[in-house]
Amino acid sequence: MAELTFEINEPLDMHLHLRDADMLKLVGPLTSKTFSGALIMPNLVPPITTKEALLSYKQRIKEACKDDKFEPYVTLFFKNDYSYEFLSDVKNDIIGIKLYPAGITTNSETGVASMDVEVLRPALESMSKLGIPLCIHGETNGFVMDREKEFMPIYESIAKSFPDLKIIMEHITTKDAIELLDKYDNLFATVTLHHLIITLDDVAGGMLNPHLFCKPIAKRPEDRSALLNAALKAHPKLMFGSDSAPHPKHKKECCGCAAGVFTSPIALQVLTELFEKHNALDKLNAFVSLNAQRIYNLSLEKKTIKLVKKDFVVPAIYEYKNENVVPMYAGETISWSIESIN
Amino acid sequence: MAELTFEINEPLDMHLHLRDADMLKLVGPLTSKTFSGALIMPNLVPPITTKEALLSYKQRIKEACKDDKFEPYVTLFFKNDYSYEFLSDVKNDIIGIKLYPAGITTNSETGVASMDVEVLRPALESMSKLGIPLCIHGETNGFVMDREKEFMPIYESIAKSFPDLKIIMEHITTKDAIELLDKYDNLFATVTLHHLIITLDDVAGGMLNPHLFCKPIAKRPEDRSALLNAALKAHPKLMFGSDSAPHPKHKKECCGCAAGVFTSPIALQVLTELFEKHNALDKLNAFVSLNAQRIYNLSLEKKTIKLVKKDFVVPAIYEYKNENVVPMYAGETISWSIESIN
Repeated sequence: MAELTFEINEPLDMHLHLRDADMLKLVGPLTSKTFSGALIMPNLVPPITTKEALLSYKQRIKEACKDDKFEPYVTLFFKNDYSYEFLSDVKNDIIGIKLYPAGITTNSETGVASMDVEVLRPALESMSKLGIPLCIHGETNGFVMDREKEFMPIYESIAKSFPDLKIIMEHITTKDAIELLDKYDNLFATVTLHHLIITLDDVAGGMLNPHLFCKPIAKRPEDRSALLNAALKAHPKLMFGSDSAPHPKHKKECCGCAAGVFTSPIALQVLTELFEKHNALDKLNAFVSLNAQRIYNLSLEKKTIKLVKKDFVVPAIYEYKNENVVPMYAGETISWSIESIN
Repeated sequence: MAELTFEINEPLDMHLHLRDADMLKLVGPLTSKTFSGALIMPNLVPPITTKEALLSYKQRIKEACKDDKFEPYVTLFFKNDYSYEFLSDVKNDIIGIKLYPAGITTNSETGVASMDVEVLRPALESMSKLGIPLCIHGETNGFVMDREKEFMPIYESIAKSFPDLKIIMEHITTKDAIELLDKYDNLFATVTLHHLIITLDDVAGGMLNPHLFCKPIAKRPEDRSALLNAALKAHPKLMFGSDSAPHPKHKKECCGCAAGVFTSPIALQVLTELFEKHNALDKLNAFVSLNAQRIYNLSLEKKTIKLVKKDFVVPAIYEYKNENVVPMYAGETISWSIESIN
């Protein structure tokens, strides 16, 4: 019997955390090997807020990734006081700017304190004029299951106030966000792999599972359904962004575990498994590449990932020097493997 | 300035897990010292299902607790096939029978597979005739935030089918359960200390906190408000039941942590702090003793716990031989201390 195969062309991960130093050297190649490009989030300590830091980080990523066919699209950490001149100067070096409400996730302590449009206006007007997209971690500091829903009016307010600004609702987790996507032309979104698969049940419904604890937290079954349905039909304003976020094993499996799910090395295999299960493989290339190419105006070198329907046992851990990270599905078997990369 | 003091008379903990062996020896005295009695849950491995096991466990509890003024009210683990003769024989040795849907919490694997009233009818009819109360862990196996709410129709169905059966909704966590309390004369409830204080935010809103992970999981702010309001007015059908559930530190602070919050040694101090804060100290004796005495027809020896408004630093851990357990508020300071016990 012939093996079932599937090809993904120029896959893009439009929301990725690569960290720095040895952790970057560990996780960078796990994305660059199988993806054509990734949008790299800037929440290092200190965050990326200068052209110098940006270019230096991009260089470190390229050195760690060692793949000529992989493009790291870097971002700045949003600050209210970025001037038009500064933004104009860095415009060609970045793909967008990432806005974090202060204290909302890992290394976001220096994020913006107020989401009032008037406070944000100067920087957002400059970005709008210069055509720099705004990527937002959209959560309030309310009750954990309501934080994204409560942020919807803020998305609306920014979308209405800056109709020429491309706004990306990052790692959306609710049906509210899916519904909002169709309401404003300038609103787009990324969704992770894990939010297409898990709900709060997987985090805290049986035993507590720190490896699936992330921000925004996985929500209700009806939220997952809305996200999955939009992904499976490759909603034209929705892009794949893994939000793959490595933390060392000891910081996940401890009291007070850090937030983040590490999915980079299994993302394409599991997406293929998921889209095949739902008879939607014909939509996967749009979801994982074409939508992002169109939304961000990207042109990419050809890179073809050939997957085959064959068991793949996910490694229990990935290690480099003193760093390590446990992937989603550690030790479990998934039904698709990567056969070749060209 | 005179110190602020408060007296609690004959406190009762109407839902308590004491485990067995060295863990029993560690946690038993932490309840018996300050309480007049406690309803002890039967979910050991194997569960308590025979008169012999029941009497033997009660004896081990008495030996571990070493306090003549403490009464352990023991319970049987519900089984569909208990005969009238058997129940009639154990009636005077137990305070009630605890029903667990299979697989719903720690050591509940051998619980009942179906909550269909007709399946439960023979045993429940016998209990009803004999006047044996039914204590229920009321959760379905649905989405974690909905499990208790989804169980409400099952409570209703049992309450309607057996109007003479006293039914206790154990460790309620939702406003739905509070509302149901007033709908059927034969429905009662216990509520824990921690569910009066925490929401899901405290478990998974910041970092993941395994020490506050429990079943049923802490719910939404409006649920906590409903529970707290009912406790503060000492709703006559609501009793204090800590559901204090010790697990060794390594089973809490690990990947896949066990469910349960350990509150026995701090329960009376924190309840006093909470009721004082809400100007409801005049209701605390009803909530923590009188309601249970009336609902279960208990007569108790006099035991007075005198508390004083003075800082108490909660121990980081309690230990005995190879067993240990981390209490809620470990290492933190609470504003009331126990001054004397008479």
